[in-house]
Amino acid sequence: MTASPATGPLAISFDDVKAARERINGVAHVTPVLTSRTADAMAGASLFFKAENLQRVGAFKFRGAYNAISRLSPEQKKRGVIAFSSGNHAQGIALAAQLLGAPATIVMPHDAPAVKLAATRGYGAEVVIYERGKEDRDAIGKRLAAERGLELIPPFNHVDIMAGQGTAVLEMFEQMEEMGGVPDVLFVPLGGGGLLSGAATVAKALNPACRVIGVEPEAGNDGQRSLAEGKLVEIAVPRTLADGAQTQCLGTLTFPVLQALVEKVVTVSDAQLVEAMKFMASRMKVLVEPTGCLGIAAAFAAGEDIAGKRVGIVISGGNVDLASFAELCLKGAA
Amino acid sequence: MTASPATGPLAISFDDVKAARERINGVAHVTPVLTSRTADAMAGASLFFKAENLQRVGAFKFRGAYNAISRLSPEQKKRGVIAFSSGNHAQGIALAAQLLGAPATIVMPHDAPAVKLAATRGYGAEVVIYERGKEDRDAIGKRLAAERGLELIPPFNHVDIMAGQGTAVLEMFEQMEEMGGVPDVLFVPLGGGGLLSGAATVAKALNPACRVIGVEPEAGNDGQRSLAEGKLVEIAVPRTLADGAQTQCLGTLTFPVLQALVEKVVTVSDAQLVEAMKFMASRMKVLVEPTGCLGIAAAFAAGEDIAGKRVGIVISGGNVDLASFAELCLKGAA
Repeated sequence: MTASPATGPLAISFDDVKAARERINGVAHVTPVLTSRTADAMAGASLFFKAENLQRVGAFKFRGAYNAISRLSPEQKKRGVIAFSSGNHAQGIALAAQLLGAPATIVMPHDAPAVKLAATRGYGAEVVIYERGKEDRDAIGKRLAAERGLELIPPFNHVDIMAGQGTAVLEMFEQMEEMGGVPDVLFVPLGGGGLLSGAATVAKALNPACRVIGVEPEAGNDGQRSLAEGKLVEIAVPRTLADGAQTQCLGTLTFPVLQALVEKVVTVSDAQLVEAMKFMASRMKVLVEPTGCLGIAAAFAAGEDIAGKRVGIVISGGNVDLASFAELCLKGAA
Repeated sequence: MTASPATGPLAISFDDVKAARERINGVAHVTPVLTSRTADAMAGASLFFKAENLQRVGAFKFRGAYNAISRLSPEQKKRGVIAFSSGNHAQGIALAAQLLGAPATIVMPHDAPAVKLAATRGYGAEVVIYERGKEDRDAIGKRLAAERGLELIPPFNHVDIMAGQGTAVLEMFEQMEEMGGVPDVLFVPLGGGGLLSGAATVAKALNPACRVIGVEPEAGNDGQRSLAEGKLVEIAVPRTLADGAQTQCLGTLTFPVLQALVEKVVTVSDAQLVEAMKFMASRMKVLVEPTGCLGIAAAFAAGEDIAGKRVGIVISGGNVDLASFAELCLKGAA
């Protein structure tokens, strides 16, 4: 697949990412870049893992959330922010809002894991529960936003979110430069495209020859299809262990960036995700959630395509329930 | 307990640790120092976790092994090294020897986990198996060393091992300095005292007021008793999940350093180790082996003793079999 050239200006620029980095500086963790001789031998390439599972709230989502909320006016912050999410975006928004003194309201489905409800409340957010299947999340959110004057922060289709997520890869390029050179190839998990659009913006600015590859779960390849068909393709909620990549459609802002800057989107199976998860735990001693394994699994499957190259891989997060993790380690993917 | 002053010069000095650092520079990983607001809230203090589970071979042991082997003469290196160990020391020696071009022989019991045998062989070492209970490990090792002219590298009672392990804490002090200040208190896992003697040497040189606390498993408190009685106390092999701290006695070189520089030794139970292991995985996204949790569990149990302080904790390693880890997460300590 070749990327089609974009026809208009893209939603974010490298300068936006650099500005975002100034905002999150000293607040977000500078996460380490991990390496492993064993992983290199398995892949036949030099792999560099950007460990955003060690980021605050356990995922890169904190970066975009903090960047977005820090750009609100004092009045907007005072009224507060709202987000729909049962995942890492919710926790990112909750913590960022708390740190920036903005009240946060998070709309979550009634069947969200208790541990995620508790974590989100633990960051001081008000959680509003809706009944999935019976109530309309968007309607509830819009009503609350209107009634209370809250700023809605979407999970990916937002310039400040996209630029904020890109800071993970800006940091990674700087760290890899010190470790001998920037990446030739970059593997990035793909859900709605917030992280991938930010990552591609940075990669192409700092090394125009860098190949940027998005990775989706096999069951949820809407991004791959969207790029192939040249238009946004929407799919049903995919069944996959990669719960952070269950988005049904890319965003109107993220898609053109991907079209312009991403070489291709590849997919991996749930079984590959579990294998990657086990490798990361047993050999590299880090817990990675299934979604966070997308780039890792793709790199291990890439073979000749990356032979001898310097390969950057973004580990997006580590928020997997410990009991589920243990069961996957013992039994594998269902 | 107050530390008795040492009567002679100690086996290692801060200069030895600095020299060791020059030798391992660029070879050992500079492991990250992790922090967590949640951990801080639980402990009522500011905790800084030096993640040596992310070190090469998954444990700090690589530091001492590399330092010791790099000090051998070209002739000694050519003949090779030998170590007795079924644990992290074996893997540290095997990898360090491989990197320095020295053949390594590792003497391991017949019932060592297959995964550890495979890992040690994977680093290019020759593994010599002996039958635990029937054969005398020391006799086998001495015979092999004599026959082949091999240099025996003990796991802790050796100046280059002690100085090498200390580099983990030297690095940690520098990293914490950049994060706002060096530790007031330091918790360090204690087996034979290699790591703790190196750590205390660094801590007292860089912050004489720093309180250095060793941590042993409840079942294996030979170090605590040795300090209390003012002489080396030997115990039977303790039954504990902390398999890296099953040493029966401190070393003749490590003990005087501990007497001079360590404030006290505390103990934690296996159940506390499992709780700490689960916390580190679920909240901090890193895999820590039970022995590596000694300092963490002690800090969580310290209460008023560390209230409001800056607390450095050495995570010594992450080499726990993934199935065992998963079972401990699901069932807890036996």
